[in-house]
Amino acid sequence: MAKEVTNKEENYSQWYNDLVVKADLAEPSSVRGCMVIKPYGYSIWEKMQAALDKMFKDTGHTNAYFPLFIPKSFFSKEAKHVEGFAKECAVVTHYRLKNAEDGSGVVIDKDAELEEELIIRPTSETIIWNTYRNWIQSYRDLPILINQWANIVRWEMRTRLFLRTTEFLWQEGHTAHATRDEAIEETFKILDVYADFAQNYMAMPVMKGVKTENERFAGAVDTYAIEALMQDGKALQSGTSHFLGQNFAKAFDVTFTDKNGKLEHVWATSWGVSTRLIGALVMAHSDEHGLVLPPELAPVHVVIIPIYKNNDQLSVISEKAEKIKKLLSDKGLTVKYDNRDTHKPGWKFAEYELKGIPVRLAIGPNDIDNNTVELARRDTLQKQTYPQEGIEKVVAKLLDEMQANIFKKALDFREKNTYRTDDYEEFKHIMEDKGGFILAHWDGTEKTELRIKDETMATIRCILLDSEQEEGKCILTGKPSKQRVLFAKAY
Amino acid sequence: MAKEVTNKEENYSQWYNDLVVKADLAEPSSVRGCMVIKPYGYSIWEKMQAALDKMFKDTGHTNAYFPLFIPKSFFSKEAKHVEGFAKECAVVTHYRLKNAEDGSGVVIDKDAELEEELIIRPTSETIIWNTYRNWIQSYRDLPILINQWANIVRWEMRTRLFLRTTEFLWQEGHTAHATRDEAIEETFKILDVYADFAQNYMAMPVMKGVKTENERFAGAVDTYAIEALMQDGKALQSGTSHFLGQNFAKAFDVTFTDKNGKLEHVWATSWGVSTRLIGALVMAHSDEHGLVLPPELAPVHVVIIPIYKNNDQLSVISEKAEKIKKLLSDKGLTVKYDNRDTHKPGWKFAEYELKGIPVRLAIGPNDIDNNTVELARRDTLQKQTYPQEGIEKVVAKLLDEMQANIFKKALDFREKNTYRTDDYEEFKHIMEDKGGFILAHWDGTEKTELRIKDETMATIRCILLDSEQEEGKCILTGKPSKQRVLFAKAY
Repeated sequence: MAKEVTNKEENYSQWYNDLVVKADLAEPSSVRGCMVIKPYGYSIWEKMQAALDKMFKDTGHTNAYFPLFIPKSFFSKEAKHVEGFAKECAVVTHYRLKNAEDGSGVVIDKDAELEEELIIRPTSETIIWNTYRNWIQSYRDLPILINQWANIVRWEMRTRLFLRTTEFLWQEGHTAHATRDEAIEETFKILDVYADFAQNYMAMPVMKGVKTENERFAGAVDTYAIEALMQDGKALQSGTSHFLGQNFAKAFDVTFTDKNGKLEHVWATSWGVSTRLIGALVMAHSDEHGLVLPPELAPVHVVIIPIYKNNDQLSVISEKAEKIKKLLSDKGLTVKYDNRDTHKPGWKFAEYELKGIPVRLAIGPNDIDNNTVELARRDTLQKQTYPQEGIEKVVAKLLDEMQANIFKKALDFREKNTYRTDDYEEFKHIMEDKGGFILAHWDGTEKTELRIKDETMATIRCILLDSEQEEGKCILTGKPSKQRVLFAKAY
Repeated sequence: MAKEVTNKEENYSQWYNDLVVKADLAEPSSVRGCMVIKPYGYSIWEKMQAALDKMFKDTGHTNAYFPLFIPKSFFSKEAKHVEGFAKECAVVTHYRLKNAEDGSGVVIDKDAELEEELIIRPTSETIIWNTYRNWIQSYRDLPILINQWANIVRWEMRTRLFLRTTEFLWQEGHTAHATRDEAIEETFKILDVYADFAQNYMAMPVMKGVKTENERFAGAVDTYAIEALMQDGKALQSGTSHFLGQNFAKAFDVTFTDKNGKLEHVWATSWGVSTRLIGALVMAHSDEHGLVLPPELAPVHVVIIPIYKNNDQLSVISEKAEKIKKLLSDKGLTVKYDNRDTHKPGWKFAEYELKGIPVRLAIGPNDIDNNTVELARRDTLQKQTYPQEGIEKVVAKLLDEMQANIFKKALDFREKNTYRTDDYEEFKHIMEDKGGFILAHWDGTEKTELRIKDETMATIRCILLDSEQEEGKCILTGKPSKQRVLFAKAY
């Protein structure tokens, strides 16, 4: 390997961290818990943003931007909401610095204390619903279908690059509806968008379900989520869509006149995915050589590397390489021709494997003689020689195959690591041993949920939307249960 | 007019504010000095972002993301920088809220006080150069050409929608170079990008120049800017590109080994444009009917409005309208067919004029009989009837014409309102009367610059890059001067 990355089997957590840093995705910053998203990591986020943004717009949503700051009084209006977020809020108290009188540098100007503290948004329901109050009078003003791309701050005590950081980037949708049914329909529509995105772009299979009360978003009536299984057998919540009922409308007094002239509170949803998805992408597919990026989200699809002994060879190879680059670019692919003379081909091979570039083309003197090119695919690491003629079609087709193959590999892994059990000892054994998803019966009480968590570290990830009704007994208490729920240890 | 907007001649400032709010671009939020950018306003920002982002990438830049927070100690490292920004900083002092003991709600948890206060970025030179220190060892690591799209907070006392808000959105480029010449070249390259964008997308002519020391960015060696003239005769600084020399490299100890093995400090630039450009766009072109958007930045290029007396007519018209919409969409244009029955055509006409949609097509019963359509262009408000056949070509060509015409109108206005004078009384008279740009001689001292500002409210916007050397006498002091500089009252 070009750069040292911890062995995945020995220490998965350290392997993840090494990979994120060595592949130039992100690094810890000097500000506690905040990361620097480096250009390569950010370019993956841009691909994610572009795809999601199009999906939101195709389903009728528009973007807008609301303030970073939330006055403390707004933040407190929805009781459960403030309870859920109060312990992790960054608070702005002053708006000016001044020179210290003792000449020791700048200090807070105590004369510039805010009358009311401002919270840096940990999520924007409160500031947005306070705004919606002025936008909504009649049913004709509904629905409002708005999304926001923004930064968010939650003061996390234990942070990990992408997975849990004090500041992160996300999108948050906030919609307002005239009826309960319409808001519920929106909640599911977005859950489907998220599942489609995870599966078709990230090549990551997900389970769709509803959260238990204990795992619900603070202020929601119901929280729906997509859950994915990482290679270490832990689940990662990858997106949430909340049916908020009339909770925020009531807290912020947002009413409308319905078609019959009756005054009603507005129905709401909110939903979000974040830069956490980059962490999911890394953990779902990477191998001991580095990242494996699904072509749909790869910032560079193809890298071309010349293999040469002298400048004459390089110039002949470069001519061919540029032609091939043009053919591939014309197919809409992003191609990099790496003709740097500062690094040897072997170093470059390892570097692009580390970075997960889907297809590598190498061209050497023999290839010039034979009009061939050596193609290596990142997912299987298989190499094969092809004629240069028509290589653009081979690559385009291969990228589709790779996208499907990466998904299939993740799906096979999940299927192999999803268990059904009615035996608590077996449940504990699975969780201790290799992890994975377990479908088991639960008596529906928070007490049981928390005891299982306490004893096994597994939480109820969700109650699957497509789960069958099935009479059974709670895996812990033996009390009656009507359906299995999805357990896993989680990030 | 559909909605009441203050008369532009009577009160330009109120007219601007009304227009921004009534055209649904933005509104003040409940957080002091912060605005809500509404979907229509944000969609203009998205068009600006897309064009600029492509220009940055085409010139070799990549995007990344750095933390929102800047530790106070970093912020203080560059002396002039902290001096320039200390008085307008939002400061985070605590990271947790708790329930008040008296049950009155949530309050700051005094136990959760930060050891070191965090400043919300008013610009990111400090946090970025602290990061670059670890990225740069050798000349091989240079240049670094990074841009960031982000939110920024500067605690402004007097705010105006888009033009000056406590929080705003912007892009900030931060580049690192091995040589002074290369950094200076970058500074000019970006100034050209900004000027191209202003002129070719915003249809807004700009003057390029260097700022006086007094108007320089805090921490820069030289600040270059593009300056545009608004319709009230005031200038608006629309983008800045800073040559930072080695100031930040020295403050953050960022060195590299050059080709000769010698340790040197790195050379830097930074540059930015913000949502202020939306304010510029509004003020540069709008008229008494509302916004006039140059087609390159219009979120919707064409609106089609049916004129009908009954549903039979509507259905025939709709069929034609959908066909035309398809033809225009196929040309890459964004088209809206507004067949709402809740508003009359007259209301819709006024509404889309207010919103600055470049082209309006109206189809009525006569048009059905004659296979025609009535076209109105927003810039001149001229109407003309065209055959439906080939209308997509007419519209596409017209949009190009309009883009050029809107620019020409703004350029004519600027030329008419740019003066050369050597007489201070005339200078004062122009500034008092109608404003505009004045090219006048200046003795090069800050004292004179400030006195002129004091007496006339005009500031030196910049020293034009293409200004000719010309012997003259300072307009205030009569001292010798070698070139004219550009004065104006400014936003």
